This record gives sequence, structure tokens and C-alpha cells, in this order.
Amino acid sequence: MNQDYIKPDNWSIIEEGFDLDRVKSSESLFSIGNGAMGQRANFEEFYSGKTFQGSYIAGIYYPDKTKVGWWKNGYPEYFAKVLNAPNWIGVLVEINGETLDLASCKVSDFKRELNMKEGWYHRSFTALLHNGIEVEVNVRRFLSLDMDELGVIKYEITPKNQDATVVFKPYLDAGVHNEDANWEEKFWEPLQTQHDINEAFVVARTFKTHFEVATFMHNSIYLNNENQNAEPVFTDTTSDKVIFTYEQLVPKGQTIALQKLGGYTVSMNHASADLIPAAQKVIQKGLALGYDSLLQNQIDAWAKIWEMSDITIEGDVKAQQGIRFNIFQLNQTYLGKDSRLNIGPKGFTGEKYGGSTYWDTEAYCIPFYMATKDQQVARNLLAYRYNQLDKAIENAAKLGFKNGAALYPMVTMNGEECHNEWEITFEEIHRNGAIAFAIFNYYRFTGDYSYIPEKGLEVLIGIARFWHQRATFSTYRNQYVILGVTGPNEYENNVNNNFYTNYIAKWCIDYAIEQIQKVKQEYASDYARIMSKVNLDDAEMLHWKKVADHMYFPYSEEHGVYLQQDGFLDKELVKVHDLDKSQRPINQKWSWDRILRSPYIKQADTLQGFYFFEDHFTKEQLEKHFDFYEPFTVHESSLSPCVHSIQAAVLGRMEQAYTFYLRTSRLDLDDYNKEVEEGLHITSMAGTWMSIVEGFGGMRVKNNTLHFEPRIPNEWNGYSFKINFRNQILKVSVHQHETKFTLEGNSPITVFVNGKAVLVEPNSLVTV
Amino acid sequence: MNQDYIKPDNWSIIEEGFDLDRVKSSESLFSIGNGAMGQRANFEEFYSGKTFQGSYIAGIYYPDKTKVGWWKNGYPEYFAKVLNAPNWIGVLVEINGETLDLASCKVSDFKRELNMKEGWYHRSFTALLHNGIEVEVNVRRFLSLDMDELGVIKYEITPKNQDATVVFKPYLDAGVHNEDANWEEKFWEPLQTQHDINEAFVVARTFKTHFEVATFMHNSIYLNNENQNAEPVFTDTTSDKVIFTYEQLVPKGQTIALQKLGGYTVSMNHASADLIPAAQKVIQKGLALGYDSLLQNQIDAWAKIWEMSDITIEGDVKAQQGIRFNIFQLNQTYLGKDSRLNIGPKGFTGEKYGGSTYWDTEAYCIPFYMATKDQQVARNLLAYRYNQLDKAIENAAKLGFKNGAALYPMVTMNGEECHNEWEITFEEIHRNGAIAFAIFNYYRFTGDYSYIPEKGLEVLIGIARFWHQRATFSTYRNQYVILGVTGPNEYENNVNNNFYTNYIAKWCIDYAIEQIQKVKQEYASDYARIMSKVNLDDAEMLHWKKVADHMYFPYSEEHGVYLQQDGFLDKELVKVHDLDKSQRPINQKWSWDRILRSPYIKQADTLQGFYFFEDHFTKEQLEKHFDFYEPFTVHESSLSPCVHSIQAAVLGRMEQAYTFYLRTSRLDLDDYNKEVEEGLHITSMAGTWMSIVEGFGGMRVKNNTLHFEPRIPNEWNGYSFKINFRNQILKVSVHQHETKFTLEGNSPITVFVNGKAVLVEPNSLVTV
Repeated sequence: MNQDYIKPDNWSIIEEGFDLDRVKSSESLFSIGNGAMGQRANFEEFYSGKTFQGSYIAGIYYPDKTKVGWWKNGYPEYFAKVLNAPNWIGVLVEINGETLDLASCKVSDFKRELNMKEGWYHRSFTALLHNGIEVEVNVRRFLSLDMDELGVIKYEITPKNQDATVVFKPYLDAGVHNEDANWEEKFWEPLQTQHDINEAFVVARTFKTHFEVATFMHNSIYLNNENQNAEPVFTDTTSDKVIFTYEQLVPKGQTIALQKLGGYTVSMNHASADLIPAAQKVIQKGLALGYDSLLQNQIDAWAKIWEMSDITIEGDVKAQQGIRFNIFQLNQTYLGKDSRLNIGPKGFTGEKYGGSTYWDTEAYCIPFYMATKDQQVARNLLAYRYNQLDKAIENAAKLGFKNGAALYPMVTMNGEECHNEWEITFEEIHRNGAIAFAIFNYYRFTGDYSYIPEKGLEVLIGIARFWHQRATFSTYRNQYVILGVTGPNEYENNVNNNFYTNYIAKWCIDYAIEQIQKVKQEYASDYARIMSKVNLDDAEMLHWKKVADHMYFPYSEEHGVYLQQDGFLDKELVKVHDLDKSQRPINQKWSWDRILRSPYIKQADTLQGFYFFEDHFTKEQLEKHFDFYEPFTVHESSLSPCVHSIQAAVLGRMEQAYTFYLRTSRLDLDDYNKEVEEGLHITSMAGTWMSIVEGFGGMRVKNNTLHFEPRIPNEWNGYSFKINFRNQILKVSVHQHETKFTLEGNSPITVFVNGKAVLVEPNSLVTV
Repeated sequence: MNQDYIKPDNWSIIEEGFDLDRVKSSESLFSIGNGAMGQRANFEEFYSGKTFQGSYIAGIYYPDKTKVGWWKNGYPEYFAKVLNAPNWIGVLVEINGETLDLASCKVSDFKRELNMKEGWYHRSFTALLHNGIEVEVNVRRFLSLDMDELGVIKYEITPKNQDATVVFKPYLDAGVHNEDANWEEKFWEPLQTQHDINEAFVVARTFKTHFEVATFMHNSIYLNNENQNAEPVFTDTTSDKVIFTYEQLVPKGQTIALQKLGGYTVSMNHASADLIPAAQKVIQKGLALGYDSLLQNQIDAWAKIWEMSDITIEGDVKAQQGIRFNIFQLNQTYLGKDSRLNIGPKGFTGEKYGGSTYWDTEAYCIPFYMATKDQQVARNLLAYRYNQLDKAIENAAKLGFKNGAALYPMVTMNGEECHNEWEITFEEIHRNGAIAFAIFNYYRFTGDYSYIPEKGLEVLIGIARFWHQRATFSTYRNQYVILGVTGPNEYENNVNNNFYTNYIAKWCIDYAIEQIQKVKQEYASDYARIMSKVNLDDAEMLHWKKVADHMYFPYSEEHGVYLQQDGFLDKELVKVHDLDKSQRPINQKWSWDRILRSPYIKQADTLQGFYFFEDHFTKEQLEKHFDFYEPFTVHESSLSPCVHSIQAAVLGRMEQAYTFYLRTSRLDLDDYNKEVEEGLHITSMAGTWMSIVEGFGGMRVKNNTLHFEPRIPNEWNGYSFKINFRNQILKVSVHQHETKFTLEGNSPITVFVNGKAVLVEPNSLVTV
């Protein structure tokens, strides 16, 4: 953890001073993205220090051959990797023949700023080169939200102490590799390079998946903001690289700038033959708009996003910065326009974990997108799973399931499983539950039932079939059991009767049956279409129901709690609090077997069930379970603190809730886990948002109505958030002694505040 | 399975006819070894077909960098691989300029014979070359038991249809690699080549472990058994290879022979500088003896081994061939001269599994070596573990254990763990129990207590400490539990309270305390030495005892059986018999999770406890447990059928015992598991021996006395075996209606036959 790394600021992420050991961390923290592409904050110029180079394009992946020590039957042959994409940001810089390299020259006044309000990244420094020339450098980079194939760089150099010959060598490079490649294979095959006076294109294709990408650039040279209409003095081309060389004498004190437009056109969106023409159009449009308009459009587009999704916090700059960083990164990663895309755990900030889609999307991200975007965005996320239902059925069939049973993958790009730890891939099957729960949650929040007859019901049926087959009858218990699973707590493997898994399995079956009946009655033609497709009859549903009705849940009479799994009470129940600090984090200090037999919980497990199904249990039950499990929870998953923060808030334990909140909101900014170098924890950022809205704000939807139980940490003067509830925007501002509501929309709505109905009229303030 | 592959024969393994698809399998089956080195039955001449090349030297290994998909804390960095050693058997052959290659010429009368009685391997065939020349080829190869650094090849060629120019190119080659190398690295670094007129040396060193090996050869050419005193016409040398070229015109019908002496001298046994001189001495001695004497000595040496360890079976050639193959291979692998060596699971026949030492040694192999060799051999096997005690303590410390607790590795070469599946490496801890049990078993059988005060007690203390720390107290049960283990049944992982593990843990503690008391009373100076070394006091032992006295064993009142582990009864208890044949073997047909949650048992687990501790239980209890568990046992481990065969025999179920016997004794010969290509299952071969001696013969040692309950399968007329019992040799011959005993020795002994005392006088026959 490093609390002094990033300067506190309401709207920007700021680093001051150049530290070679922080370069990789800052490359993660200052990453930019626009939902379609993104990059780590790698330097444009040559850098000989430690760096983790990464540019990424949404939806482009590579099925890297699986690497394991010991093969287990059922492993997927390939692991879909997030693909490091061709580099378009690179600009080599030479000053009087000396290459600018921050690792070798003398750097002062180094500063990075990620301006979250306006959506750009800026870097400035003064460099004293070995040849004695001192230059001031300013670089701004942004990826356009409006034109999501386009990125813009303005690279400015001002010689400070003498005239200098400045050479810019902007380039495109498809000869990139993944740091996490299993077998050090190349993932890209270069197909074609093409260049014109100031613009160039490198077309490359991924091996195996055959995505084609044209990476492009267009360069202009400005002296003191005056376009020089310069042409390259030299152009170097290889099969996967194009480099232009621009040379200009720059008088001392004057500023030379390279404006580089760049980006990608992709075969997911264009015919192969159109990739270069499409890129040319992007360039033309970008040039026509010009740098200033492009930047202004970017500022306007981010203003629109903030208008809807901003959360303000008064009296606590670090908390304010933290929540905005989380919201900003979520919007950089996924904007919800394209149902082929999803929310990778590292977004566009790293390669780790591979795949783009975990159960995180359904469990953590959908609530955020539902409440801060048009409902179509959440619907696209649901449709992503619908579109992959066939693959989920194939996946289940590989593991011996039949008759259309669907097991969604633990990690995926295209619907195929790409994880290969047996204890996760084969056994962490509760993920299937979260996917069904998201359908329920979408309808509960949006009131849009149409998704279920159109698409959702088929998913629910495939999932119910899976649970029905996966549960087995224990003659010993005379109940159905689910053996050999891994629950959300990945610090236990291959356990029997994980409460959370059994509970959500039963719920999935019950909910599927309920929705089948509803669709049968209210959407007869959809019903007929679906039933003929899935070949489901009443007899089969009776079998499902038998499993749901006789599901076993491990329970301790003594403690009055459901047990995380069979045998939990056999563990040596020493609380985290009584563990020596030197033993933490256990995932770094203890061997795996010791973790497994310990009672320590990585993230909410039984409590995850209490989070999803809060209204199935009393507050007393929640308290009992929270008091039983939280003391054994080490929160070593980024997904852990948020759920606990929400539940602590429900239980009125605001200090604890606030502590958990800080831990989730500044996880990356303060580098709690000393791993931010590898990229950001994108999906858990949605949990931070939930901590405020559902935790402190106490927002719930019950019977088509918004409910709030506002609470506020002592440390804050106030906070506010907005909710897009059924196409009207409700703004909620909470202060120590009052809560204010304002509504942007046309129809008055009734909300419940601490159980009391409050009418909120459009465009008028209600204070409670 | 392939029952017609190997011709039935009492003393030889014979293959007739050349089948390209069987070459790799036969390379395994016809492997030869002499305890110090060995090779697969690779062809000496060039072969372009599918082959798995392998030469091995006992004790020489390489720590290959661990390969896993997902790293877990505690994994060893390196995995010790059985090392493919430099090739000394190679002889390229050209006939009138055409290379002899069985994959490309026309082969007839192909025959292999592994003569187990005399210890040699012979191959003969007729080859019609593309150039029209037909030759008859006879090759005999053996590895000297007397001079275990020396191997001998006689390669004879007789042109059948015309005179021919025969070129022999014998070579040495250190440029070998392992098929199972994790990262395709080279394991050998060539240091030096040296050659004289007919002899050559290649010295190479293993990377990292720095074993140095001189591989040598000496060649002579004979025409019709007349030494030609030929010299090579050409010598080709590279950094890791020496090739001699001998050329000779051979008249039609006459026989040219290359006699190649070869082998290794190794830095484990010689100073580095002496490797070549030592090899020269071996060559000189070999030449002085000459081929005929070397062969005769080999026959004599094997006769001595057979004299002691042979088992005869009358009336069932396949059963006879099977048991001799097992005994032969065990003796080829390990002769017990060197306590630095152990019994690799594939011996000198393949690379699979890595390491040389599993719990197989203690659980399966020691009884065989104890009864068929001088007791020093078993003592050497025990000492191997004593010598690695420090490493076992280090290994435990890596996993968080303290105070001299010892966890022996699952797989090892030098005492360090080299396995890396967490469910095995970290959790299959019952191996520690077998190591203690072997100490008990050695004393029970040999009556030699001296091993315990000298060495064994320290091992017992380290192991007791481990179990004491590994068990945890369950307040819920008010007993000690052992969580998160894998039992002998590796088709279950991370289970709680595996009966076998808990039982042997308790036994280890009890036995250690008992031996400490005994040593204290009877070996005061050893006691003082050991206690001051291990720093053990009575208070600590009281803690141990508390764990042993309050150990929990899962038990089912309903079934009257101990449960394999907690939750076993939750499983869907469908018997193997009711499983569709298409689903077998489940380890090939089912995904891993499905296997884990099934009730199916890979090898004896609870029953392994009943095997080790037979006299702790009644025959009725054994029957109940056998009837409960065997029906769920799929016997997909080579170690499974033998224990079940013994127990079926105890229960008087001779048909079942016989079926299990056949499965264990001809596992490799009939290639039951279709994997003999990879090498033989050496350690389970000792289980075959146990099936006869302990199963059919019913041999036990109780109170320093041999007991027998002889039974005989209906299919046999009779069988006999010998037992070295306390330096006297007892021969037991069982027929359908009588059992005969003869004793080679000086003192009469009393044995019990079906509970009745029988006096056996030296050198006289007793019939019961």
C-alpha cells in the first residue's frame, strides 16, 4: 500500500516526480480507454526502463494453447487471452541525434495527470540530455468517445537552452507479443502495410481467431501551433512496421509538436477489404474536425457521462477521488453499445486473468450499468449470455451433462471456457446462478419484462436443467446434495453442499419454473416457440421441482447459522483478528493446503447469498451470519469489501462500513495489494459504486418502487448520486441530518425513505 | 489389452513378427537393467519409425523447472526428472552403402526374446534391403550384474544371398533429451570426448545437479567368431558424439559380428578425474573375461537371484510367465546394494512420473525385498529415508510446520519434493504413515531391532511431530480431525477425515511413543544421543498422545463400517457393476469433477488400512468393509488389484482373488491399460509377489513366527515360493491338497499352518 503515491484531487489522478520503480504502476493507473480500445499509459517515446507495454482492442482475443503441469480430463484445449494489440502510439524522438529516453536522461518536473472530468491524459517533464540540450515536453493523449476508432496524441517539445534539431519518428508496430503468452508464440500475423505521405496502415490478422485489424496513423507537424505541412524525410517499412521520420530545426524557446491521429479499424465491424478505406475515413473526419474540436467533443462526451453517473462526496477528497476513479474506469472499459463485448477484469489496463467475462459482470457490474445508463446497456450484457447459450450447453455436455443443460464458463471471450484449474473451471459452478439472478435483477430494476420471453427464459431453462442434473440424491440425508464445488470463497476447494451454491441452485429452479408459468400465461407465442425449441415438458419440470423442494442446506443449530459448507465447524475457528499480522495476507504467506483447511474466507460466500437474497432473511439472521462469518474473512479478493460494506451499513455499523468502503474505493490508487503494475481491478470498481448507493444510500427496489435508508459516514459532510429509474433520473443527496431528492423527468414518483412514502415531483426538491 | 502379444513361455518373454505399431510397447517390455543402469529395448541400428529412446542411470536426475498453469504457494520450484542418459548402444549399420532401417526394408522372421532366467535380451530377423541384399541379423545385449558399469552387445550379420560390404558405425551420443522435459531444455552439457583405437569416451555433466558421467565403448570385429583385430577406417568426433566406422567385406553365408562393450562410470562412484581411467579399467576387465565368460557370469548371477526369489506355478504358463516377469523386473530395477538408490515407478523403462521414490517403496516393495534378499537390502531402503530426514523437515517447514516435524515428499530423487499438483503434493500426506509403517514392518519381519535406535527412531519422531501438528482440534466434535487431505484413493481430493490417514496418523504417534520408551529402557546411550538431537521432552509427547487418543474416525452405524471420509455417504452410491461399460475407465471417460464427486475408488483406501493393520480388526469387520468398498472400486491404479487379491484370499473368495491376481501379474504383458509404451509399472510388480505369498500363501509374521494359510486357485496344480526368514530359507510348495515346507538353514523353526504349529527341520521335507 502506498498512500502518498497519487495526489488527492477531486477530478484528476495526479502523479508528481519521476520514479523508475513506479513506471509500471503508473502505466496501469493512467490507462485510457473508450470502450472499444484502450492502452496502458506507456510512454510514446523510447524507454529503456522497466515497462509493461499494452494496447488492447475490445473483443479481440487469441486462444492460447493451455498450459498445465498435470492434465485433467475436461480441460479446455485453449485459454482465450486478452490480446496485446499493435502499437499506434509510438513516437521515437531524437534531439540533435540523441534518443530521448527517460531512463537515461535527467528528468525534472515530471507530472502525469489523468483528467477524469474531461477524459484525457497529460504528461509533462523537463529532460536534460547527455548532449546538454534541455527540453520541455508536454504530451496529451485521449481516445475519442465519439469516434471510438480514433485516438489523438499531441506531443510537444520546447528546447529550453539552445536551438535543437528535433526528429520525430512516429510509427505503427504489429510485432507485439503478450507477456502472459503460454508458449511464447506470436499471436499476430502481419498481412499488409500501406502508406501515403503522412498516413500509414498496418493490417495484421490474429492467428487461429483470424480477427483482422488495420492499425493506422496520420501525422502533422506544428511549430508554435502552426501546421508546417511537413512531409516525412524518410519512411521505413517492414512487414509489420512503418516508421516515418520528420526532422525540424527548432529555435530555443519555440515549441514543435507532433499531432498523431491513430487507432484501429477491425473486422468485427468492417469487411476485411474495407479496413484501410474505413481507417482513411476516420482520419479524414478527425483532420476535418481538428485537434481542438476533437478535444472539446471529448470533454462534452465525458460531461454527459458524468452528468448521469457522478457521485459527489463532500469533505473527503480521497474518498471523492476514489469513487470517481472507479466510475471513470468502468466507463472507459465498457459503454454498453455492443452486446458482443463485456467487462474484462482488467479492462484495457493489463492481460492478467485472460478472458473478458467472469461472473463479476452479473454479480457486480450490472447494477452499476443499470442505474447509470439507459436500460439497453444492461440488456446488452444479458444478451451477451443469451448469445452464448449454445456454447454453455456444449460446455456442460463436455462435462457429462445432457438435454440442453447449460454451464456458463468461469472465464470466457466467446462463450467457450478458458480457465484450467479444475477446482475453478469444473467446480466453481455457482457462476451459473449469478447469470440467472441478473435476469431477475434486471426485471426487478427496470420493469422491462420483455427480455424474459424474448431471450432470458431459454437461459433460465438451460441453467435449471444444469442444477437439476448436478444435484444428486443422498439416500443418507433423504435430500438433494451438491457435491464437489468451489463457492465464491476460493480459499476452499471441492467442498460439499456449499450453502451459497445450494441456495442459488434451488432459487434458479424455482425462478425458472415461475417464469415458465408466467410466459405461458402472458406470452403464448413466445412460450410455444421456446417450448418447441427446448423440448421441455411438465414431467421434466416436476423432476426439477423435486430437487428444489428437497435441497439440503447445512445448518448449525448451535450457532443458528447456515454453514458455508459441510464440515465448516470442524475447522480450527481462530478469528482473523487473532492471527498474527506476520501471517497476512495468507495468500502470500501460507501454502495452499494450509489456506484450504483454515476457516479463512477470501470474499463473501454465505454472505453473498444474503446479499442477493436479502429479503429472504430477517435482519437478525443477517446479523447472526455477518457476525459469524465476517470475523473469518480476510478480504483478499477485490470483490470482498464492497458486499461487507453494504451489509455493515444495513446493520448500522457505519464505522465498519466506511473502512470497507475506503478499502474498495482506493484499492488500486493506494495499491493495497502491491500488484497494480499488472493492471487495475475493473469489475470490483462496480462494487465500490454499490457500497455507496446500496450501502450508504440503502437503495433497494421492491415492488417496482425505490426504497432508501440513507446513512452517512461521520467523516463526510454529504454525498450525492443519481439513479436512472425507469427512464427518469432521481438525484439523491445525503447529508448528516437530511436527504434531498430531485427528479429529472415527467411523472412524479413515490420513493420510500426509511419505510416512509415520499412523493417526488419532477424538477422540485424534496427534503427528508 | 492385448492377450496375444507376448507368447506364453515359462522363462522368456517372446515376441514374434514385426509390427511397427508395437515397437514402442516392446521397447518397454524388453527393457533390461542391472540395478545401476538400464535401457529400453531400442534398436541399436538406425530406425526411422516411432520409437521412444531411453537409457537411464540409477540416481542421476535433473531438476526440471516446474511447469504449472496456475501457481500455488508452496509448490517446489523444480521437478526432479529421471534423466535420459547418453546413448552407448547405438550402432549404425550400412550394407553395400544402404542404411539398415527396419521401418524401410522388408523384415521377416522377426523375433525378440527376453530370457529372464539368464538375464539377456536377443533380437533376430531377416531383412531384405532395397539394394536386393538379404541379411540375417542376430543381436544379443545384456547388462552385467557382476560388473554393473558394463553392458555387452553382440551384433551379428550374415548376408544370405550375396557377398556384401558391411559397415558398422558404433557410436556414443550425449546429445540426448527427455521426452517429458517441461521447457524443452537440454539436460546434459558435454565436457570432453576422447578416443583411442577401438575405444572412446564422452564425458558429460548434467546441468544444475552436476553429475558427471563418462559414457564409453570398446568395439571389436569378428568374422565367423574370429577376432579381426580391426581398426576403424574413420572416426568422427563432435563435442558430444564419437562415431567409429568399421568396414568389412563379408562373403555370402558368413557372419560378421560387432562386439560392443559399453556403459557408464559416474561421479557418484568415482572422482571426476578418474571417470575415464575407471572406464578404461572396466573395458580391460571386460576384454580380459571375453564375451563367453561375461555371458556365463551373467547366467550364474541371475541363477543366484532366481534361486532365492523364484516363484513357480504349475499348470498355468501365463500365470508363471507373469510372476517371473514381475520378479525379474524388480531385480533389474533395484538390487539393494546402494542406500542412495530407490525403486522408480518406471525403473529403467521410461521417464513418466519423474522422481524415483514414492510411498510405493514402503507400502509395496519392501515386503518383497525383505523376503527375497538379505535383510541389508530392506535396511538400505529404510536408510534412504533416514538420510533424507533433514529434507523432509525442510519440506514440512515450507508448509508451515515447526520443531522438526517431517513431511516426506510424495515424489523425490534427493529428498526434495518434486511433485506439483496441490492435491497430491500438499495433501496426500498419508505417505508419511507408510514410511513409519515400513520401520515397524522391517522389525516385525527381520527381528532386527537395531535399526530403530540407530536411525529409525528419529524418523518416527519427525513423523509423529508432523501428525501432531497437522491434526486440528474440532470443538464441534470434541476430537482431533485431519482436514484437507487426499487419501490413497486419488479419485477424491481435499477431503476431511480420510479414515486411512487418520488411522495411520494415530498409529504413527502411538508407535513412536512406544519405541521412544523402549529405546529409553534398552538403548540408553542411543536414547541420550537422539533426545539431545531432537530436543523432545515428556510434555511434548503428552501433547502427541492427546491427539492420538482423541482422534476422530468417521463411522457409519447404519452400515457398520468406517467411512472413507466425511460425507462419503452423501455420494450417489451406484456400484461399479451397475455402471455402463462405455463409461469405463472413468479416468479416460469422465471429466475430473465428475470422478471426484462419484463414489468410485481408484485403489484400496480404507482397505489399505485393513491391509496394513489386519490384526487390529476381526475377519467379520474386514468382510463388511470389503463388501462395502470393493464394489465401488474401479482398480484404475496398478497398485489396486494386489491388495484386493490378498483380502479376497483371506476371505476365502478364491475366484475373485485369482481374477485380481491375473490383473496385477500381467498388467504390462497384456497391456491392460494401453500405456505400456510409456514404460513398465515397476512398483506394483511387488504387489503381484505379495498376492501370491501373502494372498494365496497367507503368509504373516506374528510374534516372531511365520504363519501360513495356504490356498490355491482352481486353475493351478501347484505353486511354490521361498522366504528368507531371519537368514534361513524356507521353501513353501502349495498343491491342491497339501503344502510342503523345506528349510535351508541350521536351526529348526516352527511355523503355523492354518493356526497349527508345524516344526520344520533343516533340509527335510514336511508335508501338511
